[in-house]
Amino acid sequence: MIQITLPDGSVKAFEENTTPMDVAKSISEGLARNVISASFNGTTIETSTKLTTDGSLILYTWNNDEGKTAFWHSSAHVLAQALEALYPGIKLTIGPAIENGYYYDVDFGEHTVSDKDFKSIENKMIEIARGKHEFKMRSATKAEALSLYKDNEYKTELIENLEDGTITFCDHDTFTDLCRGGHIPNTGIIKAVKILSVAGAYWRGDEKNKQLTRIYGTSFPKQKELTAYLELLEEAKKRDHRKLGKELELFTFSQRVGQGLPLWLPKGAALRERLENFLKKAQKKAGYEMVVTPHIGQKELYMTSGHYAKYGEDSFQPITTPKEGEEFLLKPMNCPHHCEIYNSGQWSYKDLPKRFAEFGTVYRYEQSGELHGLTRVRGFTQDDAHIFCTPDQLDKEFKDVIDLVLYVFGSLGFEDFTAQVSLRDPENPEKYIGSDENWEKAEKAILNAAIDKGLNYVVETGEAAFYGPKLDFMVKDALGRQWQLGTIQVDYNLPERFELSYKGSDNELHKPVMIHRAPFGSMERFIAILLEHTAGNFPLWLMPDQVIVLSISEKYEKYAKKVLNLLENNEIRALVDNRNETMGKKIRDAEMKKIPYMIIVGENEEQEGKVSVRKHGGEDLGMISVEAFSEIVETEVNKTLKQF
Amino acid sequence: MIQITLPDGSVKAFEENTTPMDVAKSISEGLARNVISASFNGTTIETSTKLTTDGSLILYTWNNDEGKTAFWHSSAHVLAQALEALYPGIKLTIGPAIENGYYYDVDFGEHTVSDKDFKSIENKMIEIARGKHEFKMRSATKAEALSLYKDNEYKTELIENLEDGTITFCDHDTFTDLCRGGHIPNTGIIKAVKILSVAGAYWRGDEKNKQLTRIYGTSFPKQKELTAYLELLEEAKKRDHRKLGKELELFTFSQRVGQGLPLWLPKGAALRERLENFLKKAQKKAGYEMVVTPHIGQKELYMTSGHYAKYGEDSFQPITTPKEGEEFLLKPMNCPHHCEIYNSGQWSYKDLPKRFAEFGTVYRYEQSGELHGLTRVRGFTQDDAHIFCTPDQLDKEFKDVIDLVLYVFGSLGFEDFTAQVSLRDPENPEKYIGSDENWEKAEKAILNAAIDKGLNYVVETGEAAFYGPKLDFMVKDALGRQWQLGTIQVDYNLPERFELSYKGSDNELHKPVMIHRAPFGSMERFIAILLEHTAGNFPLWLMPDQVIVLSISEKYEKYAKKVLNLLENNEIRALVDNRNETMGKKIRDAEMKKIPYMIIVGENEEQEGKVSVRKHGGEDLGMISVEAFSEIVETEVNKTLKQF
Repeated sequence: MIQITLPDGSVKAFEENTTPMDVAKSISEGLARNVISASFNGTTIETSTKLTTDGSLILYTWNNDEGKTAFWHSSAHVLAQALEALYPGIKLTIGPAIENGYYYDVDFGEHTVSDKDFKSIENKMIEIARGKHEFKMRSATKAEALSLYKDNEYKTELIENLEDGTITFCDHDTFTDLCRGGHIPNTGIIKAVKILSVAGAYWRGDEKNKQLTRIYGTSFPKQKELTAYLELLEEAKKRDHRKLGKELELFTFSQRVGQGLPLWLPKGAALRERLENFLKKAQKKAGYEMVVTPHIGQKELYMTSGHYAKYGEDSFQPITTPKEGEEFLLKPMNCPHHCEIYNSGQWSYKDLPKRFAEFGTVYRYEQSGELHGLTRVRGFTQDDAHIFCTPDQLDKEFKDVIDLVLYVFGSLGFEDFTAQVSLRDPENPEKYIGSDENWEKAEKAILNAAIDKGLNYVVETGEAAFYGPKLDFMVKDALGRQWQLGTIQVDYNLPERFELSYKGSDNELHKPVMIHRAPFGSMERFIAILLEHTAGNFPLWLMPDQVIVLSISEKYEKYAKKVLNLLENNEIRALVDNRNETMGKKIRDAEMKKIPYMIIVGENEEQEGKVSVRKHGGEDLGMISVEAFSEIVETEVNKTLKQF
Repeated sequence: MIQITLPDGSVKAFEENTTPMDVAKSISEGLARNVISASFNGTTIETSTKLTTDGSLILYTWNNDEGKTAFWHSSAHVLAQALEALYPGIKLTIGPAIENGYYYDVDFGEHTVSDKDFKSIENKMIEIARGKHEFKMRSATKAEALSLYKDNEYKTELIENLEDGTITFCDHDTFTDLCRGGHIPNTGIIKAVKILSVAGAYWRGDEKNKQLTRIYGTSFPKQKELTAYLELLEEAKKRDHRKLGKELELFTFSQRVGQGLPLWLPKGAALRERLENFLKKAQKKAGYEMVVTPHIGQKELYMTSGHYAKYGEDSFQPITTPKEGEEFLLKPMNCPHHCEIYNSGQWSYKDLPKRFAEFGTVYRYEQSGELHGLTRVRGFTQDDAHIFCTPDQLDKEFKDVIDLVLYVFGSLGFEDFTAQVSLRDPENPEKYIGSDENWEKAEKAILNAAIDKGLNYVVETGEAAFYGPKLDFMVKDALGRQWQLGTIQVDYNLPERFELSYKGSDNELHKPVMIHRAPFGSMERFIAILLEHTAGNFPLWLMPDQVIVLSISEKYEKYAKKVLNLLENNEIRALVDNRNETMGKKIRDAEMKKIPYMIIVGENEEQEGKVSVRKHGGEDLGMISVEAFSEIVETEVNKTLKQF
């Protein structure tokens, strides 16, 4: 008999050679129907693997990330079998599960594959799936493996490089693949498949190697799940911030300026400024002071901070001066500069906390291939602030920052979020700088604040920054995707490195504690996420243009301008469309620009001194006075934009 | 007889060997008394030089820059004679006239000189001056010259390096110096002298050479002029923006961040922001749109713009990326980025002018020795904008910019200024890029606008930027010193280099004209000048703190806070001094911080619900209500800060 420990801590005795599926059956028929993967003592296994020792077993269903990974990994085998059946003589290379699906990299030889072929591949896959073929792992010798792939130089290379000497294959139906394991019980569980795209990919990701064809697919246990996923993809495409950014004239990129370096167009710059002013106002109330610092600093500054040792080689390289040979770096972070601002004064405990805030633009090198719209850039502006306080003030300051972050999220329509508390990995202390005692103090302060503020939080051990633990806000957008936004980090280390001090009530010098925080995180990334979350329909207070006045014909141009002036006097951002176009065209264009309110003016409106109002999307608010309309706008603004 | 042409164009016949002094006497006795230097056919000569050919003669008095230069150059000879008399065996090197005085670099050998010795040097100089010794030039052979200086390796080196072979000496009294000429008639004209400072200076400015002692001095034809100058120096010292910046906690520098890179402290950052918001508001009314661009750009961008070819080698060197080997530059100018923003859209003549504005921080290398507070830095923020317009719109746009600049100056108390129109040097066309035709058009537009706006302007030929002509505003500060502030430049060249275009009413593509403009110039330099101009007493609308509430004792702390709230509700920037200090100390500190209004609250004030008001400088406004006080503030603000 062997002793199996289950996730709830219970221990049950089973006969040797019991499988995870047997264990599932012993628990319930329902579980047995749903279990598709398992892990034993931390290693992924099949549900059919025979257990021969005591150990901890976890059973996975489709609802676990691990279950999905096994599902998509298994689907990649089915894809490979289908491709071999349809395109004889092709050479398979690798085919992993990825987020939301899988791919397979294939050397198609003479064949070519395009989206016209997707349907036949899908049909073949479904045909195979319906065979309910069991996935079975088996061991092989290196010689056997090499013999099987004697015509496939890619698999041969993989086998040659297998370091641990254990070679395993997975068989299902007539198909065999070199594989480490982790499959669902049989192909029959795969009910719906979709081939998504085809792309080029170099063997082993190296552009010196041969270019292969990568086929991306996804699959689901139910057809309606696939349908829902494809709808989500469609919606995400419509909301792609790169597409919306162009349509709404918010930002652009220039090859000459450089990739990953956004240029903010007037409407985008105004949007950014509005967000900045919104945060500035709240920060002012919360006792922050704005500072301004340069975008470069001497290399020595980052050697002092420790950033150079950690990131120097992978960053933008130093800038030298022509005659004096000095070395500067583009600033990757604002904190060293703010430490030097702190150091320019002498502080007593009565002066603390000092809260220095800056919309600080920083530059960090990312490889070209990693760049993506505004979410992965090489230059971005942090809504940064550093709080320097006494240890006694840390708890309150941390909680106040949480309040500020929650206020920001609330005003921008992000209502679904969790907090992730990142602590250090106690087993790898060499990864972190600073004393154990300080780390403990900091971690406790964060957990206290998260509990006290009633946050829905998870603890991630080993995810802390090298200089301190942190709390990150993970926000779910309208499509259910999760994004990391605001961050709050405690830091006992920079105050030591920069020799920061204040005079305590005991008249002695002490080191302050430092909090790094950024509710938005990065203005660029935040705006990208907000664009995708709202599909460009920002909260009214933030919209670049809140109202557009559409004149029915040239005759009402003058009245349209009069209405515009009235709106502007009421601090409503409006513009006039006086083009010589049909009303239908004007409305379609305004819809496209996502302008929340259209005001239509013609003969009736002018005579009665009123305006006809149409909301974005089509709702008709009828003919009302400009004053009544202004009140509608004001009410809607105040609904989301509360006082801090 | 020779024909002498005078500056008024008149030509007079004189006998050969006539001197400038003779010519002066022939004009008037008064002129003869005052003439101290002259130039003949563009070359500086003595008033005693014998004229032997026809030519143009200009006579200079103390009121000409050329006269002052001769005066201070001559004074340097007197200083050298005095030093030789007081410190036997010293070696003289060079001693030129500079702005507001002169210096002499001396190898003092065994001797040392400090400010304790200044009085005796001055006395010796005055003693020599009173001798009314004539300055007399004479030629010498190289052998004679080398023999005279056989013990002075510095003068020997100078003589060896004299390329044109003519060696001249100047004698006065018992003293002789190697000299090219340009003296006043005799030492007696020097009535007042002052030794100002002593410093180290390397021979020929090269730190590999021996360090010499540099003695700085000034001198005047009247004692009261010296006194006035010394008072001005004293006042300038008090107003030094580096000193005021520290006292008012506006900005700081950090050796670790790097020299020439200001860090703006909270009060300074708020001041900057206020200036920026002031300009933003006016710019919005004038139809500008804000944009935001990165602080770096690919090298290619600046090769396109022509900046790299012109400045590349003397600038901050390129930033490379670790793996991809790209090259970026810190942006020295915002214009290439704005051209790329223009290029991101397609424009018709109806869309123009486009006016893109940005508070764009740029970085330019300056040698360490050239850096000075905020007036000469390595990173600064331009209140930059670029107007892209059709040729037809150029005149109006240029005039509108002048209106904006005049509005800015008026709101900040700069009332005394001239405009300098910088045109190209027609004799060196190779210094400029772009066609003759375009240069002519641009120069004409600027001159037209200057005349039309009734500006007091001067034309400087040869002072244009390499890409176009410009109009700079030269502002006189409260001490009568002249500063270059706002600039407006026409540019036909970048539109060509960046291939900018718009569709004209003829449906063809045309190149827009570009205007670069910055009313402040640089935020850093502008604030420095404003600090020195106002001695820190900024216009009320701009003051970091407008009001300080001083409570007579702890008992009135609560009432002080109530007053603070009332003021803040009226949008007055105020703070409270609740320290446990005497009222005298609180008032002195508030005076030091230049806070315009002090509000004193104690028993009487609380009982009557009023406040006692004292202006900076001491004026007592008596006990009034907070409302009445707020009106006083509002009235004063509106007096300088008008609507644009």
